[in-house]
Amino acid sequence: MQAVEKLQQSYRPGTFLISDNMAIGDEGKCGGGGKEKGSENGVCSDASAKPITENDVRRDDSSSDLENPQLPGWFAEYSPLWPGQAHFLKIEKVLFEGKSQYQHMMVLESTAYGKVFVLDGALQLTEKDECAYQEMITHLPLCSIPKPQKVLLIGGGDGGILREISRHSSVVHIDICEMDMMLIDVYREFFPEVAVGYEDPRVRLHIMDGSEFLKSAQGGTYDAIIVDAFDPIRPEHEIFGSPFFEMVVKALREGGVMCIQAESLWFPSLNLPQLIHTFKNIFKGSVNYAWAPVPAYPSGVIGFLLCSTEGPRVDFTRPVNPLNHHDAASSLGVAKEPPKFYNAEMHSASFCLPSFARDRL
Amino acid sequence: MQAVEKLQQSYRPGTFLISDNMAIGDEGKCGGGGKEKGSENGVCSDASAKPITENDVRRDDSSSDLENPQLPGWFAEYSPLWPGQAHFLKIEKVLFEGKSQYQHMMVLESTAYGKVFVLDGALQLTEKDECAYQEMITHLPLCSIPKPQKVLLIGGGDGGILREISRHSSVVHIDICEMDMMLIDVYREFFPEVAVGYEDPRVRLHIMDGSEFLKSAQGGTYDAIIVDAFDPIRPEHEIFGSPFFEMVVKALREGGVMCIQAESLWFPSLNLPQLIHTFKNIFKGSVNYAWAPVPAYPSGVIGFLLCSTEGPRVDFTRPVNPLNHHDAASSLGVAKEPPKFYNAEMHSASFCLPSFARDRL
Repeated sequence: MQAVEKLQQSYRPGTFLISDNMAIGDEGKCGGGGKEKGSENGVCSDASAKPITENDVRRDDSSSDLENPQLPGWFAEYSPLWPGQAHFLKIEKVLFEGKSQYQHMMVLESTAYGKVFVLDGALQLTEKDECAYQEMITHLPLCSIPKPQKVLLIGGGDGGILREISRHSSVVHIDICEMDMMLIDVYREFFPEVAVGYEDPRVRLHIMDGSEFLKSAQGGTYDAIIVDAFDPIRPEHEIFGSPFFEMVVKALREGGVMCIQAESLWFPSLNLPQLIHTFKNIFKGSVNYAWAPVPAYPSGVIGFLLCSTEGPRVDFTRPVNPLNHHDAASSLGVAKEPPKFYNAEMHSASFCLPSFARDRL
Repeated sequence: MQAVEKLQQSYRPGTFLISDNMAIGDEGKCGGGGKEKGSENGVCSDASAKPITENDVRRDDSSSDLENPQLPGWFAEYSPLWPGQAHFLKIEKVLFEGKSQYQHMMVLESTAYGKVFVLDGALQLTEKDECAYQEMITHLPLCSIPKPQKVLLIGGGDGGILREISRHSSVVHIDICEMDMMLIDVYREFFPEVAVGYEDPRVRLHIMDGSEFLKSAQGGTYDAIIVDAFDPIRPEHEIFGSPFFEMVVKALREGGVMCIQAESLWFPSLNLPQLIHTFKNIFKGSVNYAWAPVPAYPSGVIGFLLCSTEGPRVDFTRPVNPLNHHDAASSLGVAKEPPKFYNAEMHSASFCLPSFARDRL
């Protein structure tokens, strides 16, 4: 893998966020406690099996292992936002590990979810279930309006949302703002079926902050803006105190739509009713919450908030611009396959909420 | 907790399926390797902290720890049916541990999901999300037919499905077949809000095997039969080669309905198309697959198969017998609260499938 070596040489290697002495393949554990004795760029440097020591299941000398679970050979998806639970994936190989000027990245080969991308220790995407997130965050907004033409994607550097936008033949222009060129390169190298979105000639890539881009965007330009930059968005996130969403509204045409990732139904960390109230005031159109099952994410679901601006009314729950995945030619774009997850029935169903969630909103 | 002691005295204590030296509360680990040195009835007998040894993260002397992940102080939901992934719950306390003549049981206090019931090492129910499973497996069949009167529950000894059946005022008689009296006692002691279902005077408890009960059931008796006995049902399970489902059909009235737990959308272990084909031949009415999000179950979702017998046609996707949870008086039964999860919109939405699953069925 020449390109991997090139990537590894280009970027300063970071530290492992999973146990440094994690097992590679079926050979069992490779010994040593801390990072200094352990592995290098994800390849275990000491293949002899040694007894597991206390350090092996502890991140450091504090008693934080109970709060921050780790096991050699497994990646632990654990977030203090959802304490007391962790999803472990068995890892066959560390395919890439590196650090850009912004963030730490790993590409892992898992046994159950295929390749996995990990950003600053948090699971971002797996080959197994990326279809659910990418297709829903894209087609929920784009299928809710007739003939979207100009789309802005903020974040989403992996390219999967671009791949999904590409299925819409009405679209003439796609802007994407992604801060981190290295992230794009890593996805292009290891997840070509995801990063294929960049091959669409309608795509214009802007390596810059989305807020900066919005500041200079012409008013009323976009039919749809998809925000995939804050993962997860937290109540104290700076965007809530900033004019970010006002700029989104300004950049949208009348009756334009925005979609942003929201929280899990089961473990709310945001004050969603408050957020919906705020969005109603800012966007002045429809505001709806939808959700989809994504097994690799905490609690197995992820939410989306959909907002439309003043103008032609948008009913997000009833798609007016269907993607017929049986008509492959019309819904491929640069993708190699029709959508795996999204269809018009799932679109409408995703707005149906369990009573406990419906009553909260 | 006198009743706990009574339970523990009544039944032969079993072995821990999670690490014997798991931490109790915030005191950290208590030492010792194997069961013989470790805990007793779920209460850690040696409170002094000792270094973790290799045995602590291994079930035995083989190298199976990579396949069978364990961490002190955490419960690992791991099944060879879905290898390469595990869901960990942080445990504060082991509230009960014991073994009946049939199976091993534990009641754990988790930090994120409340109390958790573990049967033969597999997570069965959590306080956090039991509403989703219990309400859906009950109301999907019962709300699909007008005025159900006689209902048979096979398994479901926890009482939660009884609690849900109890919300239906049209029901005059509820039979439940549960093999294991100890399981019922443990639920009554630790999960009173679940086991409350037994307080409904319409309930008749039969401590016996469901197949035996069905053999002597009068033909055409039941409007609905709910099967919660096989968890999970596996392709090689004996029921598929037995006359079990023929007996279910015989015990149902014309146009009667059955609901049984099926598999996860994401990790199919059954040949669902084959099973649906078989059920169509046996039941001769409608056969539909539905699903619901249950975060504590593997991959965060669980499926249901719904079948109706020859007779008045049943359209499972459109409930004809709605439970209006805003009209609390009419949908409480012995439950203390209205349904938390089920509503008519979720009912219909649960039959909408992602394209990859829809195309498979």
